[in-house]
Amino acid sequence: MAWTPAGEAVNSARLAEYYKLPGAYLNKQLQALVRAGVMTSVSGPRGGFLLARRPENITVLDVVLALEGPEPAFRCEGILGNSPEADTEMNFVRSCLISQTMRQAELVWRQALARQTIAGIADSMERRFPEDRQKALDFLAADAG
Amino acid sequence: MAWTPAGEAVNSARLAEYYKLPGAYLNKQLQALVRAGVMTSVSGPRGGFLLARRPENITVLDVVLALEGPEPAFRCEGILGNSPEADTEMNFVRSCLISQTMRQAELVWRQALARQTIAGIADSMERRFPEDRQKALDFLAADAG
Repeated sequence: MAWTPAGEAVNSARLAEYYKLPGAYLNKQLQALVRAGVMTSVSGPRGGFLLARRPENITVLDVVLALEGPEPAFRCEGILGNSPEADTEMNFVRSCLISQTMRQAELVWRQALARQTIAGIADSMERRFPEDRQKALDFLAADAG
Repeated sequence: MAWTPAGEAVNSARLAEYYKLPGAYLNKQLQALVRAGVMTSVSGPRGGFLLARRPENITVLDVVLALEGPEPAFRCEGILGNSPEADTEMNFVRSCLISQTMRQAELVWRQALARQTIAGIADSMERRFPEDRQKALDFLAADAG
């Protein structure tokens, strides 16, 4: 979609066909991206989905959080607070070193994903496969086969 | 378990009681740690579980991979290879920049977890709660209540 002309929507059925993905599955992901503000959906005969902002301003992290949800993958259950001598006033999610280690690791994971943009991926694809951009656009613009 | 004297096993029922965890749930995790070589189980009346090596030599990553499995969390499905113009000889898992970005992020996540050892966590716990080590050991050594 970083390759489509600005403002032009991609038909989701055609996109599913392109990647040989089940339409319902792909639609669910596209709608999650719309809810997260990464994509916009357009209704009508030339409707479909398009990026909500320039691909330079969408990172892989934006996409991953849109699809997986913004919650951290590691959720501290605070079981240290269950032990007989635990101070029940203490916030173990904040103070526990296991929890801190997991959250710090998740932070560097997110930072790595935030360094790569959709534009960067599209550029790299185009450098490696110079003819694919036009072929993909032609396929997506054609009527469903 | 980093606090227990070397060679001494911890009773898993007592450990479940300490953290108020379901015994079956905790046992499943302990057995996964045994399978991964992080822990050892000992049978018999004084049996139970103990660390398979010194806590300085067990990282949080060892524990996480033991519990979650060694497979990367991100598994490339290679859907780029489904597109009509895809070179079917190409290994998209290796060449795709999305896949590379996800794997690189997972690598830094693993590196962060590998920097923290179980000994480090035990030391930090002991500095913050100097009395807890002995209390925990007394609780775990006592007969189930």
